[in-house]
Amino acid sequence: MKISVSSLGGVGEIGMNMYIYESDRYAVIVDCGVKFTKSDEIGVDLIIPDFSYIKTIKHKKIMLIITHAHEDHIGAVPYLIKEYPEIAVVCGRYSWDILNKRLNEYGVSVNQIYIDEFKPFEWGDFEITAYPVSHSIHGTYAVILKIAEEFKAVHISDYKIDASPVTCAPFPLKEFIDIGKDGIDLLMADSTNIAKSGFTNGEYQVIKGIDEVFKNAKGRIFFTTFASNTERLQTVFNTAAKYNRKVALEGSSLIKHVDTARKHGRLSFNDDILISRKQVEKLDDKTICFIATGSQGEGASVITKIAENDYSNIKVRKDDTFVFSSRIIPGNEHRLIYIINNVYEKGGTVITADDLPIHVSGHAAKEDALLLLNILKPKYLVPIHGEVQHLVKHKKLALEHGMGDDNVIFFLAGNKIIFENSIFLEKQDIQAGKRYVDLNSGEFLTPNELKNRKKLAINGAVVVVNNAENIENINEKDIIIQLIGFSIEKEYINILKQSIIEYSQKNTDVEKKEDFNEYAEQTVKRFFKKRFSKRPHISIINTHNGAVS
Amino acid sequence: MKISVSSLGGVGEIGMNMYIYESDRYAVIVDCGVKFTKSDEIGVDLIIPDFSYIKTIKHKKIMLIITHAHEDHIGAVPYLIKEYPEIAVVCGRYSWDILNKRLNEYGVSVNQIYIDEFKPFEWGDFEITAYPVSHSIHGTYAVILKIAEEFKAVHISDYKIDASPVTCAPFPLKEFIDIGKDGIDLLMADSTNIAKSGFTNGEYQVIKGIDEVFKNAKGRIFFTTFASNTERLQTVFNTAAKYNRKVALEGSSLIKHVDTARKHGRLSFNDDILISRKQVEKLDDKTICFIATGSQGEGASVITKIAENDYSNIKVRKDDTFVFSSRIIPGNEHRLIYIINNVYEKGGTVITADDLPIHVSGHAAKEDALLLLNILKPKYLVPIHGEVQHLVKHKKLALEHGMGDDNVIFFLAGNKIIFENSIFLEKQDIQAGKRYVDLNSGEFLTPNELKNRKKLAINGAVVVVNNAENIENINEKDIIIQLIGFSIEKEYINILKQSIIEYSQKNTDVEKKEDFNEYAEQTVKRFFKKRFSKRPHISIINTHNGAVS
Repeated sequence: MKISVSSLGGVGEIGMNMYIYESDRYAVIVDCGVKFTKSDEIGVDLIIPDFSYIKTIKHKKIMLIITHAHEDHIGAVPYLIKEYPEIAVVCGRYSWDILNKRLNEYGVSVNQIYIDEFKPFEWGDFEITAYPVSHSIHGTYAVILKIAEEFKAVHISDYKIDASPVTCAPFPLKEFIDIGKDGIDLLMADSTNIAKSGFTNGEYQVIKGIDEVFKNAKGRIFFTTFASNTERLQTVFNTAAKYNRKVALEGSSLIKHVDTARKHGRLSFNDDILISRKQVEKLDDKTICFIATGSQGEGASVITKIAENDYSNIKVRKDDTFVFSSRIIPGNEHRLIYIINNVYEKGGTVITADDLPIHVSGHAAKEDALLLLNILKPKYLVPIHGEVQHLVKHKKLALEHGMGDDNVIFFLAGNKIIFENSIFLEKQDIQAGKRYVDLNSGEFLTPNELKNRKKLAINGAVVVVNNAENIENINEKDIIIQLIGFSIEKEYINILKQSIIEYSQKNTDVEKKEDFNEYAEQTVKRFFKKRFSKRPHISIINTHNGAVS
Repeated sequence: MKISVSSLGGVGEIGMNMYIYESDRYAVIVDCGVKFTKSDEIGVDLIIPDFSYIKTIKHKKIMLIITHAHEDHIGAVPYLIKEYPEIAVVCGRYSWDILNKRLNEYGVSVNQIYIDEFKPFEWGDFEITAYPVSHSIHGTYAVILKIAEEFKAVHISDYKIDASPVTCAPFPLKEFIDIGKDGIDLLMADSTNIAKSGFTNGEYQVIKGIDEVFKNAKGRIFFTTFASNTERLQTVFNTAAKYNRKVALEGSSLIKHVDTARKHGRLSFNDDILISRKQVEKLDDKTICFIATGSQGEGASVITKIAENDYSNIKVRKDDTFVFSSRIIPGNEHRLIYIINNVYEKGGTVITADDLPIHVSGHAAKEDALLLLNILKPKYLVPIHGEVQHLVKHKKLALEHGMGDDNVIFFLAGNKIIFENSIFLEKQDIQAGKRYVDLNSGEFLTPNELKNRKKLAINGAVVVVNNAENIENINEKDIIIQLIGFSIEKEYINILKQSIIEYSQKNTDVEKKEDFNEYAEQTVKRFFKKRFSKRPHISIINTHNGAVS
């Protein structure tokens, strides 16, 4: 039987992870995530995959399995289910609690099935087993897919080999060794940190740095990390308790994750350590630790608002310490710089991972990746979860350590790779792409529509209203020109009007509205290009003769 | 006499350096630079200071002195001279060659005077001396200003204490020690790298890393650094010669800087090492080194175009090595990532300062700053050239090393500090601000206009044309609604039309156009806010009754 693996996102980019494993009659989608927009992608909030490919496999029985509840793995599930409500969602209990809240926000309900770790799950000719792995959120799984008794794939998207987790389960080395002994055909593995040498540091390595922060802080502490990293928060709660600080939680996504982690026994602290924002006012600054959202300096986040003195009655004070226990995602640097300068201007101090060892990554570095390769000894490796540079470097690493060039497959979103009898046959192209979501209006934009919007900001728009009943008798009073987004001197407007009218008067054979529209548009276009190097959007509106362009 | 120092830019931000020293009747402006826009500041290219303050001191004799020819110190000179042609420009010979080319591009001519290093220059009651300092462009000066025989300031904007320059002059330690012995009132000094520990590495430290690049490169080398860093280029030319590679230069700003440096004897290589783009085709890849512009991944730069396979007939090949001998300015990360992935996708390799020691900064780190303080022992320190965080940390460093809190003055763009009898009296506010320049159209935009442009991209525009001669008799045919930048279903347009018409028909007392305009605008506004959470720009055009809103 032919077995295929496709990607609709996640390879050739960071974010929007979505992979599809297929046999003849069954399909298993692994993850369905979003990508966050860059600051120049204005007016849009999320990027989701183009799901068109799913239509071409609708005759198969399709399920979606979630490896973990990070947004780049679950964020697009509501959109997928809206379009394909028949897809079953298979999920670990921890991830389900997070995903379900997200689905409720969208008013989407799904056919949901739990998967328990180490227990094989059948889906037609697929047998799927979830292995818990260490990452930066609880309930992260590697997924082992046995397909039609003839093909075995290990899909391990986000992981690191952490031997010293704080609250997470350690990486199941023994189980992976056993999988390796049985032999696997295909390994799809994380490439994010492949350029980093050594092993990724274990979570325990932040304990000392965070202790240092608490030991030295003279006033209040404002701590931020990724809201989903409740393992990190365990250290913060422990350290706060040690230094007799109360903790106030701010930000709905943070509270959601804290609640979920506590419910699952993955985060523990005494209730009396928690205080509300109001109680804070009655306490000494030295006994307060806020934990808040905003590690990426998101405009609407609590930390940003506090730094702007725009969050409730919390104002930055002289001895406040803001702690960023996170890495900054490329493109967000200036947002963080903005916050840092705001805090310093108001007398506070900022501590980032550049100052103290208060952050470790959740992704495998070179040695993690090599250890995994050595344990699993896959016939084929497909580097996933990374930009092109990461995928290439992952491939290079595998080649340096003995894999053959034909056995490491370079694969991007929009690619489908096909195997038969455990042999890689070919790579095909499938439809894939990006859709930009404006959460405010609910609009979807194509990359081209987004580009046009940006053009509108740069060049503005010109509206020409032609009020003449008969173009032959057109005169200056019949033309109204309105500029949107920029202004020019009035004399230019008159020159422009004159130019449109003259043409119409001279060319009396120009009777059809279309000719007028085309000429007027060309005139406006040339005029602004020549005089102002501008390419405005142009609308011609004829108030007579019916229709509007 | 009261002596003042003001800033119109450069403090509280990186870029747009502009400081003004004043006595009663004379004023010396130090530098007049631009700031580059961030990627979300779309459609604009440069930010220049608001010069309004200069108007208030027009009765004084004003000169402008240039410390060095980086854009953040000279880029706004053409704009200043256009507004104030009477200002004399005092400049070292190296900087003048760069600045003059820039002025020619703008068609601006100035009253220019050379200043030679170590030779005092008189300007009314100012005596100004330029001391060459090490930085990352030739002809960088610290400026010592003796004012009215009673006040002595050292203005050292960009510098590092480099004892091992490649072609630059070493830092004039002896001369600075002498200045310190005489005593100074005020030190205005660079804060950019104040958070970095130790001394900033000397330029010679990149030689080994660049050698490593050349030794290992299997195919062509594409080298990029800041075009003005011709000291770095000396090492590239030396290394290219050592490894028998020819050099092709690409990018006009690079060629401009190379020519200037050669003319001034600051860059030397044999002419026969240079080849043209055409000659390159005849040579073995292993004998080629391109030096090109684009270290910040600028969209129009040579390196970006090459990475996109869009530069002449140069296509990225399998063994090409792209070398970024630079640091990435915050906000440009995703541009660089874009190039890196393009190169890897086409089979090339990228080497940055993260991979090999191929870049050193031109700015003072902690120890440079401390050494300077210890040598000069100023009565007052004003940290300059930095974001708020850098200025605060510079102040903190000075306090930790013995300066009094009152003797380190925190000062931002739009501040003026006043001294009398060498005593700091007070800090005042002056007019200052940013103007965004659209180089295409030549427009200046205020921050608010830029914000409105962005809003247009996010929300689009709605044009309502009212063609009714008499509002009382208005009907559906009289209203034309045109959407720009987005679309909605046609039925919504009809609902909207109906809603406008109904109001007009009901309120027959609504006779005045203004009332109709206001109502129509409110209706459109509410409609889009409620149904689409959109806030479009709204234009109401009445084709009868004359004027247009």
